[in-house]
Amino acid sequence: MSLAKVIGPDIEELIRENPKELAAAVSAIHPADLAELLDDLPREDRVTLFEALPIEQGAELLSVLKGEKLRLILHTASPTRLGQMLDRLAADDVTDVLEHLTQRQREAILEKMSPRDAAEVERLQRYPPRTAGRLMTIKFATIRPEWTVAETLEHLRRIDPEVETVQSLYAVDDTGRLVGYVSLRRLFPAPPDKKIADMMERRLLTVRPDTDQEEVARMVSKYDVHAIPVVDENEKLLGIVTVDDVIDILIEEQTQDVLHLGGVSATQEEVEQGYFASKPWRNVRLRFTWLLLLFVAATFTGTVLRHYENDVARVVALAFFIPLLIGTGGNSGSQTVTTIVRGLAVGEIRLRDAGRVLLREGGSGIALGLLLGIVGFGQALLWGTGIPLALTVGVSIVAICAWANTVGAMVPMLATAFRIDPTVMSAPLIATIVDATGLVIYFTVARLFLGL
Amino acid sequence: MSLAKVIGPDIEELIRENPKELAAAVSAIHPADLAELLDDLPREDRVTLFEALPIEQGAELLSVLKGEKLRLILHTASPTRLGQMLDRLAADDVTDVLEHLTQRQREAILEKMSPRDAAEVERLQRYPPRTAGRLMTIKFATIRPEWTVAETLEHLRRIDPEVETVQSLYAVDDTGRLVGYVSLRRLFPAPPDKKIADMMERRLLTVRPDTDQEEVARMVSKYDVHAIPVVDENEKLLGIVTVDDVIDILIEEQTQDVLHLGGVSATQEEVEQGYFASKPWRNVRLRFTWLLLLFVAATFTGTVLRHYENDVARVVALAFFIPLLIGTGGNSGSQTVTTIVRGLAVGEIRLRDAGRVLLREGGSGIALGLLLGIVGFGQALLWGTGIPLALTVGVSIVAICAWANTVGAMVPMLATAFRIDPTVMSAPLIATIVDATGLVIYFTVARLFLGL
Repeated sequence: MSLAKVIGPDIEELIRENPKELAAAVSAIHPADLAELLDDLPREDRVTLFEALPIEQGAELLSVLKGEKLRLILHTASPTRLGQMLDRLAADDVTDVLEHLTQRQREAILEKMSPRDAAEVERLQRYPPRTAGRLMTIKFATIRPEWTVAETLEHLRRIDPEVETVQSLYAVDDTGRLVGYVSLRRLFPAPPDKKIADMMERRLLTVRPDTDQEEVARMVSKYDVHAIPVVDENEKLLGIVTVDDVIDILIEEQTQDVLHLGGVSATQEEVEQGYFASKPWRNVRLRFTWLLLLFVAATFTGTVLRHYENDVARVVALAFFIPLLIGTGGNSGSQTVTTIVRGLAVGEIRLRDAGRVLLREGGSGIALGLLLGIVGFGQALLWGTGIPLALTVGVSIVAICAWANTVGAMVPMLATAFRIDPTVMSAPLIATIVDATGLVIYFTVARLFLGL
Repeated sequence: MSLAKVIGPDIEELIRENPKELAAAVSAIHPADLAELLDDLPREDRVTLFEALPIEQGAELLSVLKGEKLRLILHTASPTRLGQMLDRLAADDVTDVLEHLTQRQREAILEKMSPRDAAEVERLQRYPPRTAGRLMTIKFATIRPEWTVAETLEHLRRIDPEVETVQSLYAVDDTGRLVGYVSLRRLFPAPPDKKIADMMERRLLTVRPDTDQEEVARMVSKYDVHAIPVVDENEKLLGIVTVDDVIDILIEEQTQDVLHLGGVSATQEEVEQGYFASKPWRNVRLRFTWLLLLFVAATFTGTVLRHYENDVARVVALAFFIPLLIGTGGNSGSQTVTTIVRGLAVGEIRLRDAGRVLLREGGSGIALGLLLGIVGFGQALLWGTGIPLALTVGVSIVAICAWANTVGAMVPMLATAFRIDPTVMSAPLIATIVDATGLVIYFTVARLFLGL
């Protein structure tokens, strides 16, 4: 990383003054750093830099670029050069890259690739996006259960150099059905004449090509495996998904959850594109839907206030505490909903825990409310409101905190029960619900204590 | 996973009625599923189940348990049995487990372990928690640059069976200095008499034992590697961190970010423990700090309102729109801050992008404000407020949205510039800032349009 930063400014100079030395200057830069370096360059310089790269390095760069940056390069480079580069990449990476193009552009580039690689890519493209089928590598090392350890090690010397990993060796029968696996680490120390069938692990964790990629990522993380084989309905081995493909998905998935919690309804495709790649107008549209919904919900708060119009007119000081009370309810509810949604997402909280969760959050709410209620009572006295209004504020805070926490815990659990993504029950939504109901609590307490 | 669910209820029966068959009944269950199964059992049954497990399976279970669940088992099982189990685990997993015990309990268990394994664990424990040193495995396959391919393959037959991975082979010189690596996949097809020195990759990505674990996780994810070697200041190879160790860290780190955004200031240790493990009282304390801060900030909103007391007394209808206006400002600000904090976290947004980001978010704010302003204007007319107040509401919404977006974008960028974790500048904080300033905007517009 530091490397890229040091040579960053020099690169711009080279591009403009000495483009011939460009390739040599960047030859030692890791593709991930090169991708970062592109961010600092103006559009035309990015294209110049990409054109100067040798085929191999260009291919590596394509495999790490995403969204807007990738699209810029793809639209300016020649199909022949792109075809040569994509020939160097694994079929799953090529499928990823081609998703950024139109059907016609895709076909033009596939034509320039070697027929064998192009056929593989077309096979992967038949699986729906965001499934194990799209993620999997189809270059994997298979062995046979009847082989000996010595035969297996000998076979590995002749495997396709494009095979990504040999850490796990998958044993298949005559029909290609997956019957077991051996980790390479256990193969080495085994006696040379031992049969694979006698040492392979037969209990297998597998997924189908149409398994959602998030489910695959969760399995890899839960079972701590380096790879998961993908099999069809007859247990025939189609490919393997490796742990490094899964890390990016975990990060994207979390981004989506975070944005939902913040009230931004981004799709996975938008998350993958990144912040700057999405059009500002599209961004406004996504956010507007939520804001409008919350706005309409907030008008209920206004309706509640209109209902208590006479109370406010008689004791204007009641209005001073409205932002404080609904703010505290909203904040406390946000804390709860965030905690619960996260707990549900990582599997720490399950539906059957609902009782425990409600008890715990309700209890926290009362405790927090008591603490803040004392502060609020003091604050109101300081403002010279007199004891009845100060008591109103203090008691309301206790009730609102308890209520906000209960709602914040209940809504995501209910969403999960009805199979709605609980992140969509975002913090702003809870805050808005709590606003209106919090005011009802406040004015009810006020009527009681102030005799309105 | 389905396996665990199917046999779940039967397990409870077995524990109570036929504990002798218990071990056989659970022998085929993956430790990750067994850990989930424990959740459904009462405390005493968990202990019975653990006691019934053979040493090997018990060890595997210990390595996947966390927080409260792990602590329960550790406090009830005998040190001798635990010692035998921990002898089966890699030193980094043992260090993880022992962190859940007091110094005295740790020593009692280390005494029951084999002296060699105990010494390794004590070596790892010298590194600070949450660093590469704690994460790394010290059982790795090293080779020598002067060896031939054939010699290397022969050597692999004699490696320690506890070596976790042989996917990358690290070449060290006489002094233990890391000089290069070869991936096993490339070793197999190479000519048997080729020297390692002639084929190894000399450009190495390494970390120090005191490198923060989040930095390690980010490097693994960015450079898409299966493992990162850990070296000391003389480039001596100390251990390797593998990708599977890193996945859990990425998930924990994200949980922490999510909680911060929701206004819950959890530490990494608390995140790791999980939802139910932390004491409810502690949870209240963590949340109270934030709520109190926000509460104090919200009293400014009250102060602002008191300043406009006469305006509210003259036009009570002004109060109806307060929750709507500050709610919309808060929601819009939350959306922006979430988007920006996430963009900063995954590296899509950097400090030098500040200008672009402010322009983009300010623009979105004006667009969103215009759309919502029209809705607000209509809503006010519907409530029969008359055109001047309706105009006040509409215009205020535009200004508040633009302002909320600008604050929501600027605050996390400023936090980053001052090296404060931007997730700490959470959505509730932004909402509270926007509340007070939003009211000033509202009443300023009101005085203008209503001639107050």
